[in-house]
Amino acid sequence: MRVIVVNSGSSSIKYEVFALDDCSTLVDGLLERIGTRNARFKRRWLTDSGHWEEMEETRPIADHHEGFRFLLDAAVRYPTTRVAPGAFFGFGHRVVHGGEVFHEPVIVDDEVVRRIKDLIPLAPLHNPANVAAIEALRLIRPDVPNVAVFDTAFHQSMPPKAFLYALPHELYREHHVRRYGFHGTSHRYVAGEAARHLGLPEDYANLITLHLGNGASATAVQGGRSIDTSMGLTPLEGLIMGTRCGDLDPAVHFYISRKTGRSSEELEAMMNKESGLKGICGTNDMREIQRRSADGDARAQLAFEMFCYRIRKYIGSYSAALGRVDAIVFTGGIGENSAPVRRECCDGLRNLGVVLDHRRNEEDWSGLHEIQREDSPVKILVIPTDEEREIARQTIQTIRRAGVAGGARNQ
Amino acid sequence: MRVIVVNSGSSSIKYEVFALDDCSTLVDGLLERIGTRNARFKRRWLTDSGHWEEMEETRPIADHHEGFRFLLDAAVRYPTTRVAPGAFFGFGHRVVHGGEVFHEPVIVDDEVVRRIKDLIPLAPLHNPANVAAIEALRLIRPDVPNVAVFDTAFHQSMPPKAFLYALPHELYREHHVRRYGFHGTSHRYVAGEAARHLGLPEDYANLITLHLGNGASATAVQGGRSIDTSMGLTPLEGLIMGTRCGDLDPAVHFYISRKTGRSSEELEAMMNKESGLKGICGTNDMREIQRRSADGDARAQLAFEMFCYRIRKYIGSYSAALGRVDAIVFTGGIGENSAPVRRECCDGLRNLGVVLDHRRNEEDWSGLHEIQREDSPVKILVIPTDEEREIARQTIQTIRRAGVAGGARNQ
Ligand SMILES: Nc1ncnc2c1ncn2[C@@H]1O[C@H](COP(=O)(O)OP(=O)(O)O)[C@@H](O)[C@H]1O
Ligand SMILES: Nc1ncnc2c1ncn2[C@@H]1O[C@H](COP(=O)(O)OP(=O)(O)O)[C@@H](O)[C@H]1O
Repeated sequence: MRVIVVNSGSSSIKYEVFALDDCSTLVDGLLERIGTRNARFKRRWLTDSGHWEEMEETRPIADHHEGFRFLLDAAVRYPTTRVAPGAFFGFGHRVVHGGEVFHEPVIVDDEVVRRIKDLIPLAPLHNPANVAAIEALRLIRPDVPNVAVFDTAFHQSMPPKAFLYALPHELYREHHVRRYGFHGTSHRYVAGEAARHLGLPEDYANLITLHLGNGASATAVQGGRSIDTSMGLTPLEGLIMGTRCGDLDPAVHFYISRKTGRSSEELEAMMNKESGLKGICGTNDMREIQRRSADGDARAQLAFEMFCYRIRKYIGSYSAALGRVDAIVFTGGIGENSAPVRRECCDGLRNLGVVLDHRRNEEDWSGLHEIQREDSPVKILVIPTDEEREIARQTIQTIRRAGVAGGARNQ
Repeated sequence: MRVIVVNSGSSSIKYEVFALDDCSTLVDGLLERIGTRNARFKRRWLTDSGHWEEMEETRPIADHHEGFRFLLDAAVRYPTTRVAPGAFFGFGHRVVHGGEVFHEPVIVDDEVVRRIKDLIPLAPLHNPANVAAIEALRLIRPDVPNVAVFDTAFHQSMPPKAFLYALPHELYREHHVRRYGFHGTSHRYVAGEAARHLGLPEDYANLITLHLGNGASATAVQGGRSIDTSMGLTPLEGLIMGTRCGDLDPAVHFYISRKTGRSSEELEAMMNKESGLKGICGTNDMREIQRRSADGDARAQLAFEMFCYRIRKYIGSYSAALGRVDAIVFTGGIGENSAPVRRECCDGLRNLGVVLDHRRNEEDWSGLHEIQREDSPVKILVIPTDEEREIARQTIQTIRRAGVAGGARNQ
């Protein structure tokens, strides 16, 4: 049986098909430019002989509903037979915003759909696309359960002193303005892996998890639970990201709009899409930044330093929030692959008990590895994240608990 | 001879008169409601017998110019004769924003006035009042030198990675959007006192200075120089303050304006005047918060916890920025007087080398004192700040260096 994990955007659907038995990937694919006459469909799948085959085609796709019809159809037309084919155990959905309602993954029913829709004001770009995917799959395959896995759920354990802003209290009570945090699936996954690796009970481990990809966030994990995280009401707060500014004086908006006459919409677009690494040096690709910086490009060097300095300050901040830190965990495209970033973030932090081993840091590993010095009180781990697989796992677990597994009907 | 230190607001003038020889206070006063028919003038002065006398009167004052005429006149009508009376050595002005132009106090000339005016867009509420004071005194007493002492000057040593925001670079280049930092006179003063007390060369001491008053800010001082500070482009960023929110998701603005239709001006007023401690629990007075919290008021308790938690995170953050911390310094109305705040900020930070002595913390001292445990690697100091006296000192020093002391003419 198979589990499909869906990450649906406003004009795209990313999906990955997992085998139920071992959670291995059978297919992954991307349908882009939905709503146009030349939507692009790319997919890779594992053949019986154990090789990956790829395919790409262009065709008109009107909306998410048609997109999913086509995808599920393709899943049958190019079946993968390495494991019991066809039958769908469940669909797992990455849902960006679960507000204060959802603390864990849930089986989707009408009520859940209604509540995810209620949260649209908090995630106007993401939740509608997530709902579109859920509704399409419920219509097309009413026999297969859908599970919603929320980016925010892991952070619902934060205490009020960490999740509230110092704004008039009515804004929280009436309009739900608070820190929610995102990337929860990834932080939770690497926190679990770290505790297991360190041989610590999960409800004991104190960790600082750093998810550094195009989006980036830091989380303070105390006894396995998130007690603070750098993203806030939206994913704009906190670390410097590919194109997002992260932390800012809240008065910058007023100043810029007075000086340049920019509208609120323009500011929002600028802070989300033209800022961060890209705003500083023109590119949001950390590999290019490292190359240009090595070639003496001062602006790229600045972007690199600012990115790492912000992370460094969050490591300090969360060391204070936690009081005791067992390990710092690096994950995400940058966290897993950039030794220079890890070095710039960790060097000279002996006063926090953090001592990096430069040789180990530079070694080429894949999979979990330790990069601290023997005498470092705080461990430093690199752990590859896998949000899709974690969503698949949680989907399976949630369905099993609820006892509502999908039928064996082959499409 | 005397030095007058002036802190001029849009409708008020605070001033303090110091003796040149020992920088002791001779007079302090406040003229409020300037521009009305019943401006209020309060002053205290030291008599020959060493007692303080007080006076309060109400009268029409049209503008800053008339205000200063009246003040200087009063300074003659109620002369203090404990030290050589009358003659003014210089006027020291607290100027809020010195931009990237001013790294230290300067003797005011036409060029300086022009430059302070150029910086008005960065401090639209403060710099105009500061200029009004300077221009009035230059007209009334052209023989006495004016020195401008900037709130931002101490922080001009920050490196780019600390002072830049991750916004499109043009905003810095063309519109000067960057972190400036404020409270510089206070941070510099307590940093100097701390180094002296610890017997460390000022250019060696690594300190985290916490100015906690109605406004509040934290500074990382490395070798006597500010390398990072919590206030930014404006004094709105950073710690939670009496009525200012401090750090916030930059997307909060967009969300609130969509949800509530509030204008940019309303948001700015709300974030500056209705947020912070007041927004959380209704009052910005830390004494009242502590009382209400002791009486079981949950919202006051929350305000207290949020205020301290934010400071705690900055202590961690700047520990990481500094790499080595010699001492943490508490100052300002709350920092100097609230043992419960200091305790909530420092407890459980042994992993950063910070161990508070609860008994010492609660003792009633006045003046500089240490409150860490004997075995605490990081010292914790309480140091009363005195911005006016520090401005007087810098005014004297600047005038002496430039050799332009005011004439001995008595008024
Ligand atoms: N070897 C590497 N060295 C430095 N950065 C890398 C390396 N490999 C990938 N990255 C960076 O990782 C970032 C993308 O991270 P990723 O987690 O894939 O993003 P997303 O958040 O979109 O999933 C890019 O900035 C990319 O340059
Ligand atoms: N004994 C005390 N305990 C707690 N807070 C105090 C105490 N004394 C003064 N404060 C607080 O100090 C704050 C004012 O600080 P101050 O430095 O005077 O302000 P400003 O920034 O306006 O100069 C107020 O919140 C006040 O409640």
